[in-house]
Amino acid sequence: MVLNRRAMLGTLGGLVVGGALAATAWPAAAATFDQKSAPFGWTPHKLDPVACAKVAYDGYWFNDYGCCYGAFYAIIGTMGETFGAPYNQFPFTMMEVGKSGISDFGTICGALLGVASSYSLFWGRNERNPMVSDLFRWYEKTSFPMYDPGDAAQGVKGPLPTSLSDSVLCHISASRWCTSSKRAQSSKDRNERCARVTADVVTQGIAILNAKIDGTFKPTGKSEAVAYCGECHGKDKQADNAKGLMDCRPCHGGSEHVQDKFQNHP
Amino acid sequence: MVLNRRAMLGTLGGLVVGGALAATAWPAAAATFDQKSAPFGWTPHKLDPVACAKVAYDGYWFNDYGCCYGAFYAIIGTMGETFGAPYNQFPFTMMEVGKSGISDFGTICGALLGVASSYSLFWGRNERNPMVSDLFRWYEKTSFPMYDPGDAAQGVKGPLPTSLSDSVLCHISASRWCTSSKRAQSSKDRNERCARVTADVVTQGIAILNAKIDGTFKPTGKSEAVAYCGECHGKDKQADNAKGLMDCRPCHGGSEHVQDKFQNHP
Repeated sequence: MVLNRRAMLGTLGGLVVGGALAATAWPAAAATFDQKSAPFGWTPHKLDPVACAKVAYDGYWFNDYGCCYGAFYAIIGTMGETFGAPYNQFPFTMMEVGKSGISDFGTICGALLGVASSYSLFWGRNERNPMVSDLFRWYEKTSFPMYDPGDAAQGVKGPLPTSLSDSVLCHISASRWCTSSKRAQSSKDRNERCARVTADVVTQGIAILNAKIDGTFKPTGKSEAVAYCGECHGKDKQADNAKGLMDCRPCHGGSEHVQDKFQNHP
Repeated sequence: MVLNRRAMLGTLGGLVVGGALAATAWPAAAATFDQKSAPFGWTPHKLDPVACAKVAYDGYWFNDYGCCYGAFYAIIGTMGETFGAPYNQFPFTMMEVGKSGISDFGTICGALLGVASSYSLFWGRNERNPMVSDLFRWYEKTSFPMYDPGDAAQGVKGPLPTSLSDSVLCHISASRWCTSSKRAQSSKDRNERCARVTADVVTQGIAILNAKIDGTFKPTGKSEAVAYCGECHGKDKQADNAKGLMDCRPCHGGSEHVQDKFQNHP
């Protein structure tokens, strides 16, 4: 199914203009969906949250790979440095993709994606989703950054202002912090804040990981807003049209920030 | 840095209560950030968008692993089935994490995450971000689903309504389709729609991949809304407090959907 020259005639300038030709160049695709390791088959190990928080913080700054790389390396990279394969076989720089909410788009907080992705090497959705949900809800409700690297700070030393995100989205989390702290989005302070948040997310993520391994993990439920709105917008209810578990309030709570900024911007 | 019993004394009930103890149990963390493969060092190959769209569609349904798995496997799995290592060494089920916007949260569309992650095996941020941005902007502006599996449909056969997302977020993309098509979020129709969107995203993602390999890829700019709002909220401007590149209009354009639904819900 890899493209040869003849089939490439069907693809010019980013537009598929010759699908029929390309389709005749191969037999119908019959993917095996095989993989070398068992599905969700890696073995999880307990980790030290204090040591790994430092790895997460340093990983954020390492070659500026950012939050998702830092968080993922702090978990899977740490296992790799201790146990070798399969953990150390992972192409870790792939996780740079999560930086600033996926290549700067501001969607999911990359630190959350890094930890959630690490869980997915060990557990399928029935086991993993409650762990991810627990981590994400903690993130929505927690004022951070809390981590302080002290003299090992790579951006800005000393305490930083904290803010509550109410959201797992990078855009809302970072922008709220910038607004409340009067710091620029493009400032070194904001970088430092996100490096510390990466450490915070890993600290909490490892608490969940360790509890899961111990058998003591107890999932929390949906957010109050999602449960409330779900009374009408949930499965089999009268308006089953809203997908997702993000806290509803930041965008549907009437905040001045989500009014019309294109017509009557203050 | 892996946790032993003594250090675990510092972590109880999900709360870090003995950081000092844990910190003394190890030397200061000194992560190497080594990886076996060169950073962003895998070799990209051109792919056939028609054949891979079918893999993406089928991958969505395979064990219900969903959109992110389907999109990623259609690219990296296809390379693995043809070229073997390193592509076929990837623990593909990890990508299930992106299903429904990261474990059901409705953040980034998982199909977009799957394609963006595949790019990140080949290219670092300077090369990759324009590719991701191009794909994401295409997604914001395109009415889908367009892919039709014909008799090979695994959810619902026949044509489906289309909708414009204006957003890369699963929550907005899926909810807008449900609202405009009067289909339930939890319906088989919505699953089928997302399976077809996975094929659409892979088709476009491979057009970008192939063009990049050919040297003909030309990045588009920011969305009109992001450029407009960036005149004040961009780097070094008067209100540099907004992180991200998502189209601003869905949440900041005065839509009835983002008014206060907790006080005066219609």
